[in-house]
Amino acid sequence: MKINNPTPIQWRFSERAQKLQSSAIREILKVTMRPEVISFAGGLPSPATFPVEQMRAAYDKVLSLQGKIALQYGPTDGYGPLREWVANSLSTSDAKILPEQVLMVSGSQQGLDLLGKVLIDEGSKVLVETPSYLGALQAFSLYGPEFVSLPSDDGGLLPEAVETLGQGARMLYALPNFQNPTGRTLSVERRQALVAACDKLGLPLIEDDPYGALSYRGEPLPKMLNMNPDGVIYMGSFSKILTPGIRLGYVVAPRPLVEKLEQAKQATDLHTAQLTQMVVYEAIKDGFLKEHIPTIRKLYSDQCAAMLDALQTYFPSSASWTKPEGGMFIWVTLPKHIDSKVLLAQAIEQHVAFVPGAPFYGNTPESNTLRLSFVTVPPEKIRKGIEILGKLITAML
Amino acid sequence: MKINNPTPIQWRFSERAQKLQSSAIREILKVTMRPEVISFAGGLPSPATFPVEQMRAAYDKVLSLQGKIALQYGPTDGYGPLREWVANSLSTSDAKILPEQVLMVSGSQQGLDLLGKVLIDEGSKVLVETPSYLGALQAFSLYGPEFVSLPSDDGGLLPEAVETLGQGARMLYALPNFQNPTGRTLSVERRQALVAACDKLGLPLIEDDPYGALSYRGEPLPKMLNMNPDGVIYMGSFSKILTPGIRLGYVVAPRPLVEKLEQAKQATDLHTAQLTQMVVYEAIKDGFLKEHIPTIRKLYSDQCAAMLDALQTYFPSSASWTKPEGGMFIWVTLPKHIDSKVLLAQAIEQHVAFVPGAPFYGNTPESNTLRLSFVTVPPEKIRKGIEILGKLITAML
Repeated sequence: MKINNPTPIQWRFSERAQKLQSSAIREILKVTMRPEVISFAGGLPSPATFPVEQMRAAYDKVLSLQGKIALQYGPTDGYGPLREWVANSLSTSDAKILPEQVLMVSGSQQGLDLLGKVLIDEGSKVLVETPSYLGALQAFSLYGPEFVSLPSDDGGLLPEAVETLGQGARMLYALPNFQNPTGRTLSVERRQALVAACDKLGLPLIEDDPYGALSYRGEPLPKMLNMNPDGVIYMGSFSKILTPGIRLGYVVAPRPLVEKLEQAKQATDLHTAQLTQMVVYEAIKDGFLKEHIPTIRKLYSDQCAAMLDALQTYFPSSASWTKPEGGMFIWVTLPKHIDSKVLLAQAIEQHVAFVPGAPFYGNTPESNTLRLSFVTVPPEKIRKGIEILGKLITAML
Repeated sequence: MKINNPTPIQWRFSERAQKLQSSAIREILKVTMRPEVISFAGGLPSPATFPVEQMRAAYDKVLSLQGKIALQYGPTDGYGPLREWVANSLSTSDAKILPEQVLMVSGSQQGLDLLGKVLIDEGSKVLVETPSYLGALQAFSLYGPEFVSLPSDDGGLLPEAVETLGQGARMLYALPNFQNPTGRTLSVERRQALVAACDKLGLPLIEDDPYGALSYRGEPLPKMLNMNPDGVIYMGSFSKILTPGIRLGYVVAPRPLVEKLEQAKQATDLHTAQLTQMVVYEAIKDGFLKEHIPTIRKLYSDQCAAMLDALQTYFPSSASWTKPEGGMFIWVTLPKHIDSKVLLAQAIEQHVAFVPGAPFYGNTPESNTLRLSFVTVPPEKIRKGIEILGKLITAML
């Protein structure tokens, strides 16, 4: 049946595709999957936190009672009861969020892609933190934006910079809680100043919040969404509080934007799996997360403390690092002359891995930075891995 | 916590987003969800064919035995054993398909979006059938192509047109088996001529095949993929042979393209749900589809026969329609002066719905056409609905 002597195609990719690269992190992860490696590189939540039995029971119940509905095509905007749950969970006494403001998506990453699709033209100015979340930079990059990096200090981005840098921009992307990659948290005062500054410019403010529930002290800061529901786009996810492998998140936005995002989603993948949404609703509707999330906080908080302790013991005093109050990451700044990519090459030889900081910058990278994740590594291995890194850094001084 | 007197945002959407519209079909579906409506409008498979118990048992088994893996993030290219299953199922004695040529996606629609992202620039020439699948036109449209409609007859597209129309094009998109919307099937001779014509031009040929397994006589025609694995991009789906609500499909392509698609997918949604892929593999690995697919064929074949019979009885002789040998759709051509949108408005008043043909054209629409789906309507209702449509059409003559 084969045709005679076919010629392999000379592929001509789109301009946007020519700019695509594989994520630096995913490439490192491939190297560090071997069991002998102590990996601080992953952004994966700890599987110890996955409520397997709760999910198994929910799949069983939904398929037993509503199988034909769960397995059919569903609406693009999402499963009604789950949208309502999300809206209720985000509403405050003076800022009510409506279910029709919620678009269910196939993980937060899809929310980022849809926002890029709908808001970014070639050359559009997009404000990002310094550093910012790599996955967002990747998703937006496909649409050809010009990134503008907002100056920051230990308390996160500086809202006063928005007024001048944000003129004519299409959006500002921020991760205010236990940021990926730095673990930094934006104070209430800065949140209010940021929301006000964006409102003044009419600039859409994206509040990406996958880690907000993972506050070690159990008291999350107020959401920017509730400070201005007409101007803030909120992104949430079930990946860090339930399980990432099912791919489920949501975008909450004013109606005109939700409508556009829904049209874009329809062209992109029709809808997010109906079964997944019904099962997650079944699993959480009776308050499961209220018991479950504190167990994740405890685990991560303990391992964060173990890493901070080890850093204090083994890292030279010329290095500095963030002290997260929640989430999954610590950010290390080394003396200027040390390139963390060079450090990584040496560390991998000694079976320790992390992610160099450079890819997290929208503009000029700071090559003396790195990201450490502590959530999938038990304390004794954290100690050992940090000891090895500390010795390598000391030798480079 | 709210800021004072916020101003609602004046949304400025990207140029591509301004072109976005909600699918005509999805809008019609909203109207026709009421139970009193006899709807031939849907593209949904019949829920009677969903193997609910098989899926329930597979979820139970995967979550019981491999829950922590299934609920974790997974690789972007897909679950290894399922990629291998797909590759084996598509391999023939003289055209072996390798697992690394398979990219798992969140439903075929995502495959279309990724192909558009990676192959289409603003103004790129894209060849499509006349008419073509609406979802593909929508997905590609976001990337600004210039569609070129290939001439066709009752046997589908005419391969001899490719040599002149295909010069400088980026791809040719075809649905050779029981096409959506027409139900037409491309003969083996035309397949070979099409593959050869595309090879001569170095033109990537997309073979979209969601219905291929639903041949009423049980003998699918040879795949174009196997006629030239180096030049054909094959798209498959579990939506029509297992269940659509889980959102699972695949793209099979030469490695240089798979690599680009994988990078684009990473930025788009990281990966398709690991749990879904493991469960589908569990459900089908021991040959379940071999027993299951014939039951779908039988149901659809019977209902197709009922509709063809009713059309013969109730439609005027000045109308013509396709006689599908598989799949889910019949395509009707009315006398030139009848606009099927006008017919639809009258039909909905009498509680019958279908999809007008115009949105399925990449270029000049033929407004006297319409698509009928027979798979979710029992034979007695098919008869009644077609009788109503026949009377309305006769009155318009």
